Amino acid sequence: MRRLALAVAAALACASASAQTVIPQPAIDTAVQLRQQALADATGWQVVESLTTEVGPRMAGSEADARAVAWAEEKFVQLGFDRVWTEPVTFPKWERRSESAHVLGAHAQPLHITALGGSPAGNIEAEVVRFASLAELQAAPAGSLAGKIAFIDYQMVAARDGSGYGPGSAVRSKGPSEAIRKGAVGFIMRSAGTDSHRVPHTGITRFDEGLTPIPAAALSVPDAGQLARLLARGPVRLALALDCGWDGSYTSHNVIGQITGSERPDEVVVIGGHLDSWDLGTGAVDDGAGVAITMAAGHLIGKLPTAPKRSIRVVAFANEEQGLWGGKAYAAARAAAGELDRQVIAAESDFGAGRIYAFNTGSPAPEGSRQATAQIAQVLAPLGIALAEGQGGPGPDISPLAARGGAWGWLAQDGSDYFHLHHTADDTLDKIDPAALAQNVAAYTVFAWLAAEADGDFGTAPKAQD
Amino acid sequence: MRRLALAVAAALACASASAQTVIPQPAIDTAVQLRQQALADATGWQVVESLTTEVGPRMAGSEADARAVAWAEEKFVQLGFDRVWTEPVTFPKWERRSESAHVLGAHAQPLHITALGGSPAGNIEAEVVRFASLAELQAAPAGSLAGKIAFIDYQMVAARDGSGYGPGSAVRSKGPSEAIRKGAVGFIMRSAGTDSHRVPHTGITRFDEGLTPIPAAALSVPDAGQLARLLARGPVRLALALDCGWDGSYTSHNVIGQITGSERPDEVVVIGGHLDSWDLGTGAVDDGAGVAITMAAGHLIGKLPTAPKRSIRVVAFANEEQGLWGGKAYAAARAAAGELDRQVIAAESDFGAGRIYAFNTGSPAPEGSRQATAQIAQVLAPLGIALAEGQGGPGPDISPLAARGGAWGWLAQDGSDYFHLHHTADDTLDKIDPAALAQNVAAYTVFAWLAAEADGDFGTAPKAQD
Repeated sequence: MRRLALAVAAALACASASAQTVIPQPAIDTAVQLRQQALADATGWQVVESLTTEVGPRMAGSEADARAVAWAEEKFVQLGFDRVWTEPVTFPKWERRSESAHVLGAHAQPLHITALGGSPAGNIEAEVVRFASLAELQAAPAGSLAGKIAFIDYQMVAARDGSGYGPGSAVRSKGPSEAIRKGAVGFIMRSAGTDSHRVPHTGITRFDEGLTPIPAAALSVPDAGQLARLLARGPVRLALALDCGWDGSYTSHNVIGQITGSERPDEVVVIGGHLDSWDLGTGAVDDGAGVAITMAAGHLIGKLPTAPKRSIRVVAFANEEQGLWGGKAYAAARAAAGELDRQVIAAESDFGAGRIYAFNTGSPAPEGSRQATAQIAQVLAPLGIALAEGQGGPGPDISPLAARGGAWGWLAQDGSDYFHLHHTADDTLDKIDPAALAQNVAAYTVFAWLAAEADGDFGTAPKAQD
Repeated sequence: MRRLALAVAAALACASASAQTVIPQPAIDTAVQLRQQALADATGWQVVESLTTEVGPRMAGSEADARAVAWAEEKFVQLGFDRVWTEPVTFPKWERRSESAHVLGAHAQPLHITALGGSPAGNIEAEVVRFASLAELQAAPAGSLAGKIAFIDYQMVAARDGSGYGPGSAVRSKGPSEAIRKGAVGFIMRSAGTDSHRVPHTGITRFDEGLTPIPAAALSVPDAGQLARLLARGPVRLALALDCGWDGSYTSHNVIGQITGSERPDEVVVIGGHLDSWDLGTGAVDDGAGVAITMAAGHLIGKLPTAPKRSIRVVAFANEEQGLWGGKAYAAARAAAGELDRQVIAAESDFGAGRIYAFNTGSPAPEGSRQATAQIAQVLAPLGIALAEGQGGPGPDISPLAARGGAWGWLAQDGSDYFHLHHTADDTLDKIDPAALAQNVAAYTVFAWLAAEADGDFGTAPKAQD
């Protein structure tokens, strides 16, 4: 009993002793002005319009990847970033050349399908076996799908926070290997998507070590429904033809624009999005929006008469889609240079262009930054953004930094419609609401500015990678 | 003065003398029961599910055309029609084999495009010239597009009554010939559609006599926006590759199911939809719905203990899409057999699966059927359907009968969303609301039954074709 009381007292003393990070009032006043200015500013829209129009689809390793890198360098310069540079990111290159699927026999008809990233090529004619879920496929006896095509017909659920994507994307990442273990010669799935259009959703898949990869593809949601109805009538044979696959390696680049700090230039607030997209759409919500939001935020801060105390770094990450290659390279480069402790806080916008509704920060040692987080939240509140204590996490390209002990900011976007478009041909500029985009710019501007002005840190505590 | 007074008196006498068609009360009572029964009946849904699933896309002249004809014959029999037969319909056959479009140069990217029905094949690389409207293209100097691709970027407007389709489809039907006159080597257009998805809208086009056809295609709405944005930046060269064209002729069939009348079996009430679809979707709203609605209506009437006085004929018309071939053949066959006067009234459902909101009838001599029309409208009213005097017209496959003096019924569907889907890959079963479909079945059941029971006609007055 006495020991417990002592421990509690020690903990309380420790908490009260830890210095709280505080944001000075003049910085808050500037943030309020920046917020208003951002809501009326068209830079975010202009940037995403430029990227999606002039570069268009920009799959990692494609010809357009290099055009996107050149575009980003030029755009950072145009937007007044005082330092602009690139850092190499090398990864295996996957190509999509052609793809088709046809129901054979009495109900012959084409189905709209797209290869999953990482799929090998293949030309198959086989009977389809339907499973309602990944678990159902996992429960099938080994070898029971010999010579067959496995079809997981799981319907992803829409949610504001995108929580339906966990089970949806698990079908894509784990389904193909599971199908191989059951003897299947091909794998198809109902797209991990929430729309009802003939636009299949691609996305990376991986094959477990020791397995021989099989052609793997996603049907559009209406096509999956059609196939399920046909299967309810009897056996269905499908012709699946994919021409795609890995082809050597490619070196792309993270493109970085910096507004260099006036007092502590080596301390960095990182915001960004990923520059690559899948090849089917023009990468407007995934992730032209994120690049545009954070470029515009940096631009607005850069226009202030006085630079922020810390540096603000906007990173257009390379090849997020096929395995966070850019995010990993950024973190590895910081680790190699011994700069991890100077990555004060980082946040990525990579969940579309819907309005931000929640905010939080996190780190290995979050206690000291509670007050500063609350101060930022107070300036975000008029944008309809609530502090969500105990929630959130790092964006995908920030997660390698976070895994090394970096603090993260979380600006949660409304993703109710995101998976209507995600990884499809429908991910185009017309899906972005300029007013919602400006709200995002306002939020990132406020966040980055205040984090750069804070007296004290956000709990970054470098450690060996998990 | 005296002569005028005499004429007026004669006209009045004539009007009062003309017998009004009347529907007896017992028939009205049965119609009320049928209406309720139809709203609770799933036949319409089952039929459209069957057609769109088992046959799927069924472009006129394709392999699936013959499967659709066999499907319709079998379905009529299953649904209890006492007479089922086919009538041949011969037309030129057009095929789509492949199609693609790519922006060339610094902004290289693919565009989603589909050939217009009737387009020749072609492989072009040329500069694109944009026109905001058909009128703008028409105003261009002759020869001014030599070696260029003409692009009409007209955005069709959505409307409940589909009135935006007039100007929208005029671009498709008249644009290519106009482009040829100006010297163009290719024609592209913003799809005649109201959606914002990467699904281009096909549809038939025609080339004026004496002109050499050029490749003609439609961009999806987002792709047209993309091309317009690229053109705002400077010249755009496009590679357009269409493999498609006319290839001989094909004989399909109108498929007809009849509920034979008990008192005047030779007098016929005609309802129907068209059996063919474009090849891109599964023809759910265009026009699986129309076939299903009218088949279900005939089926419900056929299940009554007593047959209607007149015959009710449900026609699944062949090849509406490429020129009303089935509708023309049906009318020509009736004319050849001297049966035009016995086509009491006809109505086609070919505007999707939205709820019916208005009703009217028309004919060369409509005065005598005003009372019966009002009686039908009264039974339709609880379905949310209003009598719309002076409005409406015959559906497409009915128009050849109407041109020969046939009376028509008009059951106006809400088409607000119809042109989101029309002639695209997105025209699939999931877009149909079963409750709205049942409302359509109820309306067609009431209409067909009461028209068959009416004492008197609806003003059919055969004449030589206009």
